[in-house]
Amino acid sequence: MSKALVVLSGGQDSTTCLFWAVKHYDEVHAITFNYGQKHNREIKSAEQVAFIAGVESHTIVDIPDILKSRSPLLDKSVTLETYDNYEEMDAIIGDRVELTFVPMRNAFFLTLAANYAVAMNCFTLVTGVCQQDNANYPDCREGFINAQINTINQALGIDNFKIETPLMYLSKAESIKLAQEVDAMGALAFSHTCYAGEFPPCGECHACVLRAHGFEEAGVPDPLIERAKHENNN
Amino acid sequence: MSKALVVLSGGQDSTTCLFWAVKHYDEVHAITFNYGQKHNREIKSAEQVAFIAGVESHTIVDIPDILKSRSPLLDKSVTLETYDNYEEMDAIIGDRVELTFVPMRNAFFLTLAANYAVAMNCFTLVTGVCQQDNANYPDCREGFINAQINTINQALGIDNFKIETPLMYLSKAESIKLAQEVDAMGALAFSHTCYAGEFPPCGECHACVLRAHGFEEAGVPDPLIERAKHENNN
Repeated sequence: MSKALVVLSGGQDSTTCLFWAVKHYDEVHAITFNYGQKHNREIKSAEQVAFIAGVESHTIVDIPDILKSRSPLLDKSVTLETYDNYEEMDAIIGDRVELTFVPMRNAFFLTLAANYAVAMNCFTLVTGVCQQDNANYPDCREGFINAQINTINQALGIDNFKIETPLMYLSKAESIKLAQEVDAMGALAFSHTCYAGEFPPCGECHACVLRAHGFEEAGVPDPLIERAKHENNN
Repeated sequence: MSKALVVLSGGQDSTTCLFWAVKHYDEVHAITFNYGQKHNREIKSAEQVAFIAGVESHTIVDIPDILKSRSPLLDKSVTLETYDNYEEMDAIIGDRVELTFVPMRNAFFLTLAANYAVAMNCFTLVTGVCQQDNANYPDCREGFINAQINTINQALGIDNFKIETPLMYLSKAESIKLAQEVDAMGALAFSHTCYAGEFPPCGECHACVLRAHGFEEAGVPDPLIERAKHENNN
């Protein structure tokens, strides 16, 4: 029986990956890290999304204030950069690593997730990292993931530990098509993306602008925005 | 100016590494992880050792109960295996990974230490892992360390992050000679090794038996045992 542990932030990408895993694995578990992020509405989203997906288990690990960073996601004294639209954002960020980068965050999450996976006799992690995201986070690239897979296998003295990255080379629009294929659209209404932690989403942070651009390109309304309108009308 | 961050458990090997770093780097920092280990007398030892070494800073990171494991170091319901002597222990352990192994522990510590290092603009970690230790921990081997270095560099999008392992190929006896060379012997009286968390040390856990064997081979009295005798006489 195949088993996978999905690193679930509660955002759009990890929600899509969770439903992808449900289609590809017999037994799916989810793990969410509460690391003092400003947008901790994510945690609630992760719970709701995991419930909708009907996972075998969902573990929330509290690791408050452990990662050092000047990222506005963690440091309350730093203001989030906002953008009027996708083109402006793209021009501003360019080749620069996006300011929200938290050094070693993905390595930390995957390392800890591997520890939890092994404890449940599971040797596959699934993560929604995406090389195409124009945040230029180095720890979302395939080179990093391959290095991390090797490190986990070496640390455990095995060679069969895998990290699946179904979104690695997809554009945001292609991710949305995948979400449709794996029946994740309903759950996406409960996902959370906004770095400012707002619902309805602020619409002008890096994450919101990128998300909106993807749905626009895919020609599909964002279920989260639809839900926000719906709840606002009731 | 060269700068290094030493992962300091408060044990014999990391204490030796701390003094090695003081000889080789202009500015030395220490970091200690309090992860709910049974032998948390280590933390006190780490503080004393760091004080004796005169480090620039010493950070203690509390991460209670975050790592999953059936290791008796973390799981209070599991009894520590004890041994009458080194030869018996060596025969029992053989090629088996020692039962105290905590999966992903070193990867977790080094990943988190890299996050702290970067925050202090430091790109060198020092750790006391040793391939010769007959615990057969996979995450104490050079293959793991090299994989971890690559992962850290990939995660940060750089190529100059280093992990120094001065003890990697030393026997316990050779480590003691190195401790003498780098003037760590006084501090070793305040280091902590015993997995049972006892002072004077229990003398029969894996760590105690290995430590005693090293000092015996080196033909040097263990300063920790000397200190225990001294304090007992006063």
